[in-house]
Amino acid sequence: ARQTTRAVGAETMRGRVPGPNGLHPLTDLDGNARLQCYEDRVKAAFDRIVPVLKQISALQHESDFEQHAQSIARAELGFDLPEHMLADAWVTQLDLRRLFAWCVFETYRRMADDFFANDPLGGREVHAFDRFIQDCGFHQLDVTPCADGRLAHAISYVLRLPFGAVRRKPYAGGLFDVENTVSKWGEVELGRFREGVPNTADAPTRYLKTVIYHYSSVDPHHQGCAAHGSNDAAAAQAALDRLLAFRQSVENGFCCGASVALLLIGMDTDTDAIRAHVPDGEGRMDLTQSVDAIKVYAITRDLEPTAARARVAELVKAHAPATADPGMLRLVARLIENNLSQIDYVRQVHGGRYADAGHAERFVGVGIGFEEIQLRNLTYFAYLYTVEEGAADLDVGRKIFGGLNVSRGLPIPIVIRFDYHGGVPGARERAATRCRRLDAALADRFADLDDRGLLHRLLVVRDSDAGTGIEVVGSSLDAQMSGGH
Amino acid sequence: ARQTTRAVGAETMRGRVPGPNGLHPLTDLDGNARLQCYEDRVKAAFDRIVPVLKQISALQHESDFEQHAQSIARAELGFDLPEHMLADAWVTQLDLRRLFAWCVFETYRRMADDFFANDPLGGREVHAFDRFIQDCGFHQLDVTPCADGRLAHAISYVLRLPFGAVRRKPYAGGLFDVENTVSKWGEVELGRFREGVPNTADAPTRYLKTVIYHYSSVDPHHQGCAAHGSNDAAAAQAALDRLLAFRQSVENGFCCGASVALLLIGMDTDTDAIRAHVPDGEGRMDLTQSVDAIKVYAITRDLEPTAARARVAELVKAHAPATADPGMLRLVARLIENNLSQIDYVRQVHGGRYADAGHAERFVGVGIGFEEIQLRNLTYFAYLYTVEEGAADLDVGRKIFGGLNVSRGLPIPIVIRFDYHGGVPGARERAATRCRRLDAALADRFADLDDRGLLHRLLVVRDSDAGTGIEVVGSSLDAQMSGGH
Ligand SMILES: [Zn+2]
Ligand SMILES: [Zn+2]
Ligand SMILES: [Zn+2]
Ligand SMILES: [Zn+2]
Repeated sequence: ARQTTRAVGAETMRGRVPGPNGLHPLTDLDGNARLQCYEDRVKAAFDRIVPVLKQISALQHESDFEQHAQSIARAELGFDLPEHMLADAWVTQLDLRRLFAWCVFETYRRMADDFFANDPLGGREVHAFDRFIQDCGFHQLDVTPCADGRLAHAISYVLRLPFGAVRRKPYAGGLFDVENTVSKWGEVELGRFREGVPNTADAPTRYLKTVIYHYSSVDPHHQGCAAHGSNDAAAAQAALDRLLAFRQSVENGFCCGASVALLLIGMDTDTDAIRAHVPDGEGRMDLTQSVDAIKVYAITRDLEPTAARARVAELVKAHAPATADPGMLRLVARLIENNLSQIDYVRQVHGGRYADAGHAERFVGVGIGFEEIQLRNLTYFAYLYTVEEGAADLDVGRKIFGGLNVSRGLPIPIVIRFDYHGGVPGARERAATRCRRLDAALADRFADLDDRGLLHRLLVVRDSDAGTGIEVVGSSLDAQMSGGH
Repeated sequence: ARQTTRAVGAETMRGRVPGPNGLHPLTDLDGNARLQCYEDRVKAAFDRIVPVLKQISALQHESDFEQHAQSIARAELGFDLPEHMLADAWVTQLDLRRLFAWCVFETYRRMADDFFANDPLGGREVHAFDRFIQDCGFHQLDVTPCADGRLAHAISYVLRLPFGAVRRKPYAGGLFDVENTVSKWGEVELGRFREGVPNTADAPTRYLKTVIYHYSSVDPHHQGCAAHGSNDAAAAQAALDRLLAFRQSVENGFCCGASVALLLIGMDTDTDAIRAHVPDGEGRMDLTQSVDAIKVYAITRDLEPTAARARVAELVKAHAPATADPGMLRLVARLIENNLSQIDYVRQVHGGRYADAGHAERFVGVGIGFEEIQLRNLTYFAYLYTVEEGAADLDVGRKIFGGLNVSRGLPIPIVIRFDYHGGVPGARERAATRCRRLDAALADRFADLDDRGLLHRLLVVRDSDAGTGIEVVGSSLDAQMSGGH
């Protein structure tokens, strides 16, 4: 009831008649339809698993159990279950934990195959965006969202950017690794000097590092950023501090005027609306000053598209420091405009605010890569090389899935992933070795869960140069699987 | 008896009267004296610890024990012992394990302070060598010796290079991390493009990556490289494969003719004599073909210095492929010539072959840094960021010290070290955090030792930009130490 009242209030406040379908004039209707189709399809595939397994479980002592179970699985999930997992059900019990993990991994695998084969989000069409950001004065966009699954769709949905044009490195609380980022910055600079990619080094463009912190407008004290105890101000300040440390590292470590551009963005995980803290001419950002997409939406929703676009630009300028860089203003105006479509997406598809205000991730992703993860609350994703260094991020993940899965008796499914450069000799084998090492370390750190069958891992590598899909190199389900045959 | 016979045989074979003091005409007598002084001084400091503690232990129930012990320590070790460690001896037993670890760490700290304050090896005089290698066609020398402590003096003693001019990254078995090295290569390239350091990017010089594998002429089947089961051929082949993988990574990962130079060196850990596998014009190296310093020594020992130097160059050319790069030949000739001094050093100081043919390291070093470790068999040093990734190297270290220390009831002293760039904000604190994380992981992995007081750690950071010494940020001895006060 409260929500309805608030929604009506908002409509009243806006006053005039809204655009077609009640949406913002700048909203990308086709884009929203395509994104919705993809989100529905993928999430439905994951969400069918538990009901189907319940149904199958109820049949496990029937005489034609295996045939019956397979026909249900084929019809509902679209794939067969592993025969040996069903074969023993008559003598013992169906091992539903293992079957659940197997189904999650199979669903993930099919999703990833589709993603790399068909590019359902069109994220590899990067040329126009690359040109645009270079016109704005930037040659690389590097974004760190929080590892929180509620930000996993930040690039493709919230900001509506082609994922192929953005380096994404999620860290819990947005606390990216400064040294690692300086090293990535150096790689990009070297590409400019050596190969003129993405542009030549004499072009007056900068590397743009962005952090997205987050908060919850519906339940700010409980559904904010777990890494910062749902303290929004602390989350924003920590992200800002990390950004400034990165810039200072580049400036101190390299002379000849080396520098980088910074942008801090906040995101409401209930509405997906963003706010941007535009830096002034000296690169300073003010946490109390921002351009808020939700306000821009309200102010511009009744204008014609051309007028709305002009008004967005004016509003960005008006809410930014007077000395802000014009290129940065153009980029932020684009991000705000893109975000208007997402605000409408949440309104159309989710009634203005997500029903899953909290965590609802389907699996955990750890490692390096995961370009295919572009959906909200699908994956808790921690960018890490080792359990030792990523322990804090993993413990947050464990806590989340303790509530989501373990409390219901279901295992935590973890996809371990390392991308590699196929052109580098031995890189595939080293990536597979990294997977196995991380797998052993996870099993060790979470031995209490593993011992009870409450932790399963799928080991995956991918040649990021080849543009092909993922390759499964192992699974915690394997040993017993082969034993069953 | 066998050794004497062999030595006489060698003298006879050489035939003519040798140079002054029976040494090679190109041997750097002053250098040898300075190096011997340093080696004797440092090792004696470590080797006095056990006898002094035995002496002190025998006195622990005397009435004036504390005063007596301190006066012995001051006289023999040059420093006082921590009072609280002595104070409890009358009521319980003197905790000699803790006292031993404390003395090793204190001796290490004093050695490091001396090293950074006084540059006893003159390793920061890099200009002449930098010029020389650039004349040879290289702008950076990056050397991976095995982590084995018997190669820890490879740069300053065996090759007689200024350590400040060489990037050293030891890995067990010489199996360096390809991706990490590509990233370091990129950093150097960027410095050339951006800042003209060490030279400008248009200079036709290359990054030279070198691996030093090792073998034992005295006991080849037991005292070779532990990481390769004392199989010399396997050690050499594995090092070569890793070098080729690195070059291919650079060539495949970067276009416009990016490449690197490679050099494979073998080292006899009994005599410190090297052999160099000089690449041909295409960069191919042959494991069966090498320039052997021990043979060059024998052939040139009776010549005048100028003639000897010319002959060294001829011999290098004669034992290298016909198409070898002239700059590479010059560099190898210099390394061989330098090594002649070390062959004589081992003859003068150690009777031609080290008495400690096997492991005799005094402590373990893990982490990033350790410029001050330049002595043979002082330190088993593993270049690593995490226990998880460095587990193989650490397990070798544990095995070695199981024999050296644990079998005698002594703990394994481990120095955990991370260098940082002082110009980078927060870098010192992140280095200290890395130390603490690695410390916890070590204590966890080797909990069986730690529980018995057989594993102690000193946590150390250093600002590698400032040129100052080390900073101790913690120790496994701390908690109980502060409790004792
Ligand atoms: Zn968060
Ligand atoms: Zn400069
Ligand atoms: Zn070795
Ligand atoms: Zn090119």
